[in-house]
Amino acid sequence: MARTPQVFREEYDIDARVLHEAIQLDLGRRQVRVQKVGGGEPWWEPFDHLLIATGAVPIRPDLPGIHARGIYGVNTLQSGIDVRRAVDEDRPQRGVIVGGGYVGLEMAEGLRLRGLDVALVERLPQVMGTLDPDMGALVSDALRQAGVDLYLNETLSGFDVSDGRVRAVVTDRRALPADLVILGMGVRPNASLAADAGLALGERGSIRVNERMQTGVEGVWAAGDCAQSYHLVTRRPFYVALATVATKQGRVAGINLGGGHATFPGVVGTAVSKVCAVEVARTGLQERELRDLGWDYATATIRSHTRAGYYPGAGRITVKLLAEKGSGRLLGGQIVGAEGAAKRIDILATALHAGFTVGDVVHLDLGYAPPFSPVWDPVLAAVRQVLKLV
Amino acid sequence: MARTPQVFREEYDIDARVLHEAIQLDLGRRQVRVQKVGGGEPWWEPFDHLLIATGAVPIRPDLPGIHARGIYGVNTLQSGIDVRRAVDEDRPQRGVIVGGGYVGLEMAEGLRLRGLDVALVERLPQVMGTLDPDMGALVSDALRQAGVDLYLNETLSGFDVSDGRVRAVVTDRRALPADLVILGMGVRPNASLAADAGLALGERGSIRVNERMQTGVEGVWAAGDCAQSYHLVTRRPFYVALATVATKQGRVAGINLGGGHATFPGVVGTAVSKVCAVEVARTGLQERELRDLGWDYATATIRSHTRAGYYPGAGRITVKLLAEKGSGRLLGGQIVGAEGAAKRIDILATALHAGFTVGDVVHLDLGYAPPFSPVWDPVLAAVRQVLKLV
Repeated sequence: MARTPQVFREEYDIDARVLHEAIQLDLGRRQVRVQKVGGGEPWWEPFDHLLIATGAVPIRPDLPGIHARGIYGVNTLQSGIDVRRAVDEDRPQRGVIVGGGYVGLEMAEGLRLRGLDVALVERLPQVMGTLDPDMGALVSDALRQAGVDLYLNETLSGFDVSDGRVRAVVTDRRALPADLVILGMGVRPNASLAADAGLALGERGSIRVNERMQTGVEGVWAAGDCAQSYHLVTRRPFYVALATVATKQGRVAGINLGGGHATFPGVVGTAVSKVCAVEVARTGLQERELRDLGWDYATATIRSHTRAGYYPGAGRITVKLLAEKGSGRLLGGQIVGAEGAAKRIDILATALHAGFTVGDVVHLDLGYAPPFSPVWDPVLAAVRQVLKLV
Repeated sequence: MARTPQVFREEYDIDARVLHEAIQLDLGRRQVRVQKVGGGEPWWEPFDHLLIATGAVPIRPDLPGIHARGIYGVNTLQSGIDVRRAVDEDRPQRGVIVGGGYVGLEMAEGLRLRGLDVALVERLPQVMGTLDPDMGALVSDALRQAGVDLYLNETLSGFDVSDGRVRAVVTDRRALPADLVILGMGVRPNASLAADAGLALGERGSIRVNERMQTGVEGVWAAGDCAQSYHLVTRRPFYVALATVATKQGRVAGINLGGGHATFPGVVGTAVSKVCAVEVARTGLQERELRDLGWDYATATIRSHTRAGYYPGAGRITVKLLAEKGSGRLLGGQIVGAEGAAKRIDILATALHAGFTVGDVVHLDLGYAPPFSPVWDPVLAAVRQVLKLV
């Protein structure tokens, strides 16, 4: 817990009421219907300004057996505590993860470290669909080396249950025995309260907001995983549920709500993760997105080292870049590698914000010393390659 | 050795003549006077294009005793081999470093790791004068914790020598007993050949070139530590002797020399180093430079962590930012911290290339996951602070 209700009260003079649920919004009368969790009479609470920060909810398809014991999502503090208790007390031997995104991969690693046999089911032909297949394959390799069995191109159809407890995960191709199941099937915006009150929804059902995080109604704001964002590379509305975006939107909404002026320009699609022995990062657009947009692009991939090759601790790093043909505009990048690899994506993310061409990026005055990088930083080495192709 | 003469010949069809010295340039007749190292008759070698890449030479003041045995510069492969041999064979117990720049600090750490008592003399009130004093103090702390005795504000006046061997380093305040002395007093451009041939010199005596790395004479180029650069923040000529800048200039000169077209826009003053337990980084302008320019600036410094505070391996990081008052333009940044700290400077370097304000930087979509960063990357946390002051 970053801050308790007591800290909110004493340090910020904010009345933070936990275990209270907002169950209805009346934007005309400017009031919120509130009920204590666990029951009791609801009441109307008036507001001058309203911030909707209802976050996202995990996707949990209505499949046979999905409510059995032993099946967990990992989206709240309590759900994490529940999984840890299950591992400690039930001593499960076989864990099955459904979904090869960030949560699924982190949990696969976690269960392996706790000694379980782990299988992972993913309906796409690769894990981490936010990477191109060639880069995703490097992540699959790292998972397999950590002892995770991958079942790609398989769709979840349900669960075998007996005595109210999950026994197997059933896909369109097999049944995988399971003592413990983790669902990591992504999230959707938790926007039903806003929608019921008549607020407009946008990308993937997120609450539509302007640059100041204001909804269509004066004095009603939305921020975080429930709110829409904007993609600075495609120049189109975009939805992404990441803490780093949510906190930036929250800061902007807070400034505006407090009478100041701030705008949130948007995102470039950056995400980083650690999966077993590799660090993984991406920003901008991937090949599938570029094909969907019909944009003509060049791509280059290089292998290099995280430090000077002769320096102790130098590890492998693979960098892939995408740039627009003709203009040379940088469109995206992906990185998989050893310690020190992932945060290099920030160079490319900053370059995307600047609208740089790869001709601009190749001259960036980046930090070099043997403990940190080869003389040509791997990012710049990749840029040199793609420069020849745009 | 990155490439031997054999590799140059067989893979690139380049006749690389090592142990040959260019002793004179005749730009009118387009020829170079060459002599084999160790003597023999010099001869004139004709050229169509000439690239001057003579690098830099270490500053070695003409003080009493400077030629004694036991005093080393560390600027060539051979000088590094010489120092290592001296440590292995002469078993020195007391090492004294003259100069608190990158080379001096790396050698101080190296000699401590080899078990020597180490003292370091620096004429400035701080080590690493490319940092502001408050940030340089953090580096001094790291050196002292590693057992290096610092003598700041002291000027080298000479050496005590007996039997041709150094016995002590003498400053304006004391004599420091020494079995081994390392000179790390910086470098100057090795431009005498160019100057003697009539080529114009610029900043700190470096060879003046245009964006294509061309000197004032058609077909005569210069690149690397002997050549002038340009500072993109001050928009003035600049001299810096760093491998990462030299290789970029070399690439541009090579493309142009080969009949292509490339330009080198300049640098933003980025440098990174590892000093004992801390990583150190800087980019842009520091307070002293801003005062000299008469620019009005705001500055903020924050302390944060290299990873989420609760994540294993999270270390301390201090980030200082400088921004122009009024416009809010980012002017520079400095970072000192644990593993993972230094390369964050690349975010600020890229932002300086883009000419971003701190208002632009605060919204950068940087990578976040607990193994890599707090939710607010330390760089952005510092930006939030300086934003309030510009």
